[in-house]
Amino acid sequence: MGKGKVFLVGAGPGAPDLITVRGLKCIQQADVLVYDRLVSDALIHQAPPHAELIFVGKSTSHHLIEQDTINQLLLKHARKGKMVVRLKGGDPFIFGRGGEELLFLAEHGIPVEIIPGLSSTLAVPAAVGIPLTHRNYASSISILTGHRRRNGKVPVTRADTLVYLMPVANLEQIVQKIITVGFSRRTPCALIENGTKEGERFISGRLSNIVKKARDRVIRPPALLVVGEVVNLRCRIMERVGRAGQKVIELQGYSDRKKEFTSQRGSGQTAFPSTRRR
Amino acid sequence: MGKGKVFLVGAGPGAPDLITVRGLKCIQQADVLVYDRLVSDALIHQAPPHAELIFVGKSTSHHLIEQDTINQLLLKHARKGKMVVRLKGGDPFIFGRGGEELLFLAEHGIPVEIIPGLSSTLAVPAAVGIPLTHRNYASSISILTGHRRRNGKVPVTRADTLVYLMPVANLEQIVQKIITVGFSRRTPCALIENGTKEGERFISGRLSNIVKKARDRVIRPPALLVVGEVVNLRCRIMERVGRAGQKVIELQGYSDRKKEFTSQRGSGQTAFPSTRRR
Repeated sequence: MGKGKVFLVGAGPGAPDLITVRGLKCIQQADVLVYDRLVSDALIHQAPPHAELIFVGKSTSHHLIEQDTINQLLLKHARKGKMVVRLKGGDPFIFGRGGEELLFLAEHGIPVEIIPGLSSTLAVPAAVGIPLTHRNYASSISILTGHRRRNGKVPVTRADTLVYLMPVANLEQIVQKIITVGFSRRTPCALIENGTKEGERFISGRLSNIVKKARDRVIRPPALLVVGEVVNLRCRIMERVGRAGQKVIELQGYSDRKKEFTSQRGSGQTAFPSTRRR
Repeated sequence: MGKGKVFLVGAGPGAPDLITVRGLKCIQQADVLVYDRLVSDALIHQAPPHAELIFVGKSTSHHLIEQDTINQLLLKHARKGKMVVRLKGGDPFIFGRGGEELLFLAEHGIPVEIIPGLSSTLAVPAAVGIPLTHRNYASSISILTGHRRRNGKVPVTRADTLVYLMPVANLEQIVQKIITVGFSRRTPCALIENGTKEGERFISGRLSNIVKKARDRVIRPPALLVVGEVVNLRCRIMERVGRAGQKVIELQGYSDRKKEFTSQRGSGQTAFPSTRRR
């Protein structure tokens, strides 16, 4: 029996076909698949028939207890000689606590391989047509968590473009903080709920009115907040769409491609390459 | 004949199997593939036999002229009714000028679909074992270009972790600027050359000595600079590797997987799913 190993794999922002080719192959060879709440069912169904599927969907209020449980679970199965795939939404290292799992496993001498995933912080704005950088508007991006840190405050920096992950719970405090460091109240911003997934919603406004708009439209997690002049580029694109009288950007998300991914587990009738075929 | 369309596709950080499943399928259906210098040959070979392959590898000194040429090329082929895939290294919107191509095509009424890619700014640190965020060390990341802006200066921000794309040409100026905004000269940092690809090299140090180290080791583009306490997490992992007497993180790059991707174009003998198979 070979020594076990853990693969820390990023599932990407939501749509199942936005995982990497390497990440998908890894799932298709898993003995044990340990996955989170934000991971698509279509990816879980890619595991081979013998694989043990373990859901460890974390609720934010029980983070600490559960993280230790997850660490122990990964360790236990790796020690049995299994190929363990730890599948996390987005990228494991962008607010995904993959670093903590990696350090824990390293302490216990378990081999780990990291397969990065598309972080929703970059991929979701791209998919809705907001370029986070642009030669004339933005030469720096900051990616921040919308959760409060131990000091009770939300983080902020002074970059051209800001992207907050999980901004909904503390939106008012985040917007205040952004204005405090020098952003104009007129700075364009956008909230994207369920980016690249079924039920994707997009609202835009300015720092001065985005909190009210989010409340009126009942924006819910998971969502992203994007702040900066680049948000207007999407509006410019949309204006042109209006003028040309046609839909120029096609925002293909999960719903558009759902049919390709609804195959039964192990049936081989899937749009993904199968592990059982050479 | 259907109306043409352009797909702006991110190829990921270098290793060909770090493209998304959706991006790969798109290449496999292209009529015209327009690609850059940093895109892997193995991905180019995934285009169908009838596809026209157009290399537009940009040299930084001729950016402006060539960008217009590329725009015109995309427009010309889309107007002929072709499915045009514009394949760019990393993510099209993270310093990839995808925003400019998108705006240009929108102005001309061409339908565009965006397929994000793994940005090397996030994926390369992940692949070498540096978590860019960590609950105890980093709740904000800034991604910056190492190129001078029109005002002759390089950008800088005050986040917990900084990642510079293309830092080699202006490394000394970048490091000075980072120290100016308040980072200690003892802040850990790392340079990664050819991340995830054959010939990947990694050096680490502190802001006080990284310029000299880069010169001594002759670090060349393409490279990334990562600055912040998280760089030390990789060192902690490596220490443990040393203690355990084994290699804990496996840094699989292109060279490890080369065999899978050396198939002849159109032979069907490839690790990627084929377009010609249902």
